[in-house]
Formats: sequence, structure tokens, C-alpha cells
Amino acid sequence: MRVVITGGAGFLGRRLAKELLRRGRLIGLSGETETIDELVLFDMAAAAPPLDDRRVCNLTGDIADPAQVKALIAPGTASVFHLAAVVSAGAEADFDLGYRINLDGTRGLLEACRALPKPLRLVFASSVATYGGEIPDTVTDATAQTPETSYGAQKTIGELLVNDYSRKGFIDGRSLRLPTITVRPGKPNKAASGWASSIMREPLQGQDVSIPVDPATRMACLSPRRVIAAFIRAHELPAASLGRYRSVLLPGISIAAKDMAAAVTRHAGNRRIGRITWEADALIQRINDGWPKETTSERARRLGFEGDSGIDEIVQGFIEDELDQPAS
Amino acid sequence: MRVVITGGAGFLGRRLAKELLRRGRLIGLSGETETIDELVLFDMAAAAPPLDDRRVCNLTGDIADPAQVKALIAPGTASVFHLAAVVSAGAEADFDLGYRINLDGTRGLLEACRALPKPLRLVFASSVATYGGEIPDTVTDATAQTPETSYGAQKTIGELLVNDYSRKGFIDGRSLRLPTITVRPGKPNKAASGWASSIMREPLQGQDVSIPVDPATRMACLSPRRVIAAFIRAHELPAASLGRYRSVLLPGISIAAKDMAAAVTRHAGNRRIGRITWEADALIQRINDGWPKETTSERARRLGFEGDSGIDEIVQGFIEDELDQPAS
Repeated sequence: MRVVITGGAGFLGRRLAKELLRRGRLIGLSGETETIDELVLFDMAAAAPPLDDRRVCNLTGDIADPAQVKALIAPGTASVFHLAAVVSAGAEADFDLGYRINLDGTRGLLEACRALPKPLRLVFASSVATYGGEIPDTVTDATAQTPETSYGAQKTIGELLVNDYSRKGFIDGRSLRLPTITVRPGKPNKAASGWASSIMREPLQGQDVSIPVDPATRMACLSPRRVIAAFIRAHELPAASLGRYRSVLLPGISIAAKDMAAAVTRHAGNRRIGRITWEADALIQRINDGWPKETTSERARRLGFEGDSGIDEIVQGFIEDELDQPAS
Repeated sequence: MRVVITGGAGFLGRRLAKELLRRGRLIGLSGETETIDELVLFDMAAAAPPLDDRRVCNLTGDIADPAQVKALIAPGTASVFHLAAVVSAGAEADFDLGYRINLDGTRGLLEACRALPKPLRLVFASSVATYGGEIPDTVTDATAQTPETSYGAQKTIGELLVNDYSRKGFIDGRSLRLPTITVRPGKPNKAASGWASSIMREPLQGQDVSIPVDPATRMACLSPRRVIAAFIRAHELPAASLGRYRSVLLPGISIAAKDMAAAVTRHAGNRRIGRITWEADALIQRINDGWPKETTSERARRLGFEGDSGIDEIVQGFIEDELDQPAS
């Protein structure tokens, strides 16, 4: 079984890759559990450090280049996890780049899949940034998607394409609307939701951090562990269980910035903790205010997707996965 | 004031052109009533017969060709009504053509508008085909768009683009979700909703007609008169009145096929009436079953968009506008 992850050098792509390698198998379109022989990690730059596994193939390239994407989706590819994207603040800052990567890239990828002799299974990472404007604090399956960012528009378009290509039988696709994934390790990225990781990640590593939103700002949150499990679950669900539309809203629990800050103190142990200062940035605050504060989906629950039990689970998972690991 | 209508040779484009010529003026981005000096009708084939008015300029071309569209949206263009599209059954039958015209064409048009030295006002004809799947019989402002046709997906994408380009200040756009427009004159087209016109148009002109859906099938309907008024109203509304999302759902009253048939008899007068036979087509029925049966929008009402009072108004309007006109 040949599996491709776009955005494979990113945080989620890499976590997903590690988990797929650990499991070694995956249920795909055949309905059978198959062995993963080849795991292709595609990104614009190579993952560092590379994953040390003979099944892994690292490919660098441009997701918006149809010829490169056609080569990536070689005959025999059984699965694609499509995670590559320009993130929210990035797509807001560079309109053309956002449409090129997030729309043209997704469309080119779907066209490459369509050109295969037999359909493959595809999981697309969408986002709760597809909601915006006059939405309830708690977004549900029934909430209309009226995004207020270019990123949100592009992800909504991606879902529409995945659904339409699936309906036509060109692929067997499914889209997951991701809440804010926290705690992300590593450096801050350009996402307008970046503070929801920084606020815990930096202090727990002894670094001071400045948070660009008001302490009362709430975010719909999901942990890396839960989202990786969701990607794999989404891949393994039979098409019939998804019903008439291929998007699933993942459950994001509502956590205020100040409660994230409080959790840092609770989980400090004997760590030296960095200081949190609050300096609201009007643009970042406005983007955040337009997003859901919580997501709850009866459909996701029915399909077996699970959210976190609370902020403590999220912080504890981060400490175990990222801080308490031996240096590699 | 230079005004462009794409799809200008189509039924709605032509009706809109006639009404704009009759009025002679339009409120645009300046907020002032301006005189229409030039009305450009763009379509893939010339209108027949051409409109006899010195203000009219007929242009034929390919809406999906960026160079042609850039020439169409010449500097000085103040308004665009974007009606050009491959219709529902057409886009379902030819996947690539649908995406080329309905997605690439719309995007290229928006890019041409964005390239102008100053923004213009744009009205985009979207559709209630953007709804589908598990929707209530009566669709409202809150209903999520989960289309079940390629046409519906493409129109939803068009709305997202119009909204995003407007939010960024590249254009001042607004999208109208059109119910089924009935009664359309002329020949049947490839729309899966075509029967909702044929069922009245053909019998009232003495022709027999075969209807591809069950007599109980309901459709959300709006008359040509009302939709032309809505296009102009949408163009003249100040941007501030539209709020945070640029799409408006137009009111479509719920009429069953059998009630349309009954209205034909009521309005027969001394006409010789054609016979209606019922031969359900599985594909057409399936597409129709996925669409809204009625649309009602508090937002549209607040913005002054009006629906029809009933089927009699719709049939009477058709008779006055299309059958009782002197031959030209």
C-alpha cells in the first residue's frame, strides 16, 4: 500500500507519518487491512530531521505544479492525506499565494487522483476557519459556512471539491474540519490561532511569551493526539457511513486564553515557567473573534470521532509527547 | 457608466439588458444615480435578434479565456452582472466544462475586475442548487450549503470568491441565490429544472409536453419579473446594508408540478392547450429531489427583495410578457 501525505514535513504531517509507521497498516478502499509498504512525505522543504524508516520516501516540490503532483500521485497510490496549505494569517497576507496553494494545489491534486486507473481514498484537512461572521458561539453540523478569511474560503472550496469528486466516483474522499490544534510544538507559524499553542508551549519551556488576544478569548481546541486519531479514523471509515456529504466537523472544546495560562501553572511541576504578557493585536483579535468558540457534532460522535476531556488532557499530552521525550 | 452582462445573450441576460435600457440609469458604487452610456452583452454566441439600441455592444467570446475577459472588463467598467454559466444538467454531464466555465470563468472575471484601477460593483447569479442533501423542505438563511451537483458546488465556490474578493476590497460584489426561474420562454435548456417552465410554456402555446418528474414534485419558484428586479436591487444596495457576508437567498414560493399544470388550465382563456404527460426520469427526479422545495429569507425581506404572490402571478406575467406581445 502506497500512502502519500502532503504537508508531510509539517507538524501534523510528521506526527501522522510516525503514527502510520508505528501501526504499519491501514484500512483503505478495499475494506481490508493493508500493510503500508511506502509512505511518501511531500512538502516544499525536506523534513528535519528525516524519519529513519525504510518505508519513508521524502519528496520536495510545489503542490501547485500539476506536473509534480501528477508524478507524486503515481499509479498504485492507495491513499492521500492532504494537509499541505498556506495557513490563515499567511493566506490573508498574500492573497495570490493562498489561492495558488490552497485552491489550485488542492484542485491539481484531485485531478491527479482522478487520472489514476482506480480511485484512491483521500482525507482532506479542512478547518473551523470555514465558519465566520454571524455564527453561534457553538458551531454544529447545521451551521452554514460563511468564512471571513481567504484561508477559510479556500478550505470551504476544498471541501466542496472533495465532495464533488467523491460524488462523481473520481476519488473516495472525506474532509475533516479541524478545530485549533493545540499544543503545537516548535516555532510559532503564521496562523492567527498560533497563540493558542504559544501560550502553553513557551512558558512550559521557560520562555516568556506575548499573547496577541484578550485573556477572555475562547478557542475551539483539539489536541494533536486526537486529531491524528481522527485522520486515521476518517481514512478507515467505509464510504457508506458518511452519508450524502463528505465533510465532518471535529469536536473542539471551548477554552479561554486565561484558562490555558492557568493550566500552565497547574502543570508546571518543578519547571521554571516563562511569563505570559497580553498585548492584543487588532487584526489577530478580529480574525479570532470571527471563529467558533466551540464545535460539537452529532455526526462526528456517531462516526466515532472523539474530542478532549479538557485542557488538562491537552497540556499533559504535550508534556508527554514533546517535553518528556528523550532528545533524539 | 459602462455596464457588462456576462451571459448577455441568454434569457435572463437579455431581459436584464432590456430593463436596464428602459431605465437608462443605475445606482453604482458612487452611491449616485448614473446614466448607462454603454451596455456590453458578452456571451459565447451573439444574441438573436440583436437589441436595437445604440448603447448596446455585443461581444462574443469565451468567459474562461483570461485574455478575452481582461479585454471585456476594460478600464472604466463600473458594473458587472455575472450570469454566464453552464447549467445544472450540463455541468453534470460534462464535468470539465462545468469547472472550466463556472469556476475558472468566474475566477478569471474576478481577477480582471481586481486589475482595474478602481473597484466596480458586481452582481453574481448563484442558485438554490447550492443546497442539497439533508436539508429542510424550506431553506432559510441559516441552512448550510451542501450541494449535490457539480453546478451547485461551482455556484457555492463562486459565492465564496465574490465574498472574499469583496472583503479584500478588490470588488464590491453581491451574490443572489436564485430559486428556479419560471416561466422561461424559448426552447428547453439542459437545466434539470427545465420542466418547471416547459410544463406551462408548451401547453399555453398549444404544444404537448412530457414532464420528467412526479406531479407531486415541488420547486422553489421565482418569476422572471421578480428576478430582474432583484438583480437591479442587488446592484443598487449600499455595501453597508449587506453586513458580513455578500450572499442573499431570494424568496422562492413552493409550487408542485401538478399545481403548475392546473394553473395552465385556469389561464387557458380561448387558447388551444397542449397536453401534459408524466414520464419521470430517474436522474432528473433525483437532482430535483435534492433541491429546496421553498426558500424564505428574513435577510432578503429586510433588504427589500420580494417574491411572487402565487402561481397565478407567475403565469399571468408570462402571458403578458411573452405571449401577448406583438410579434417583433
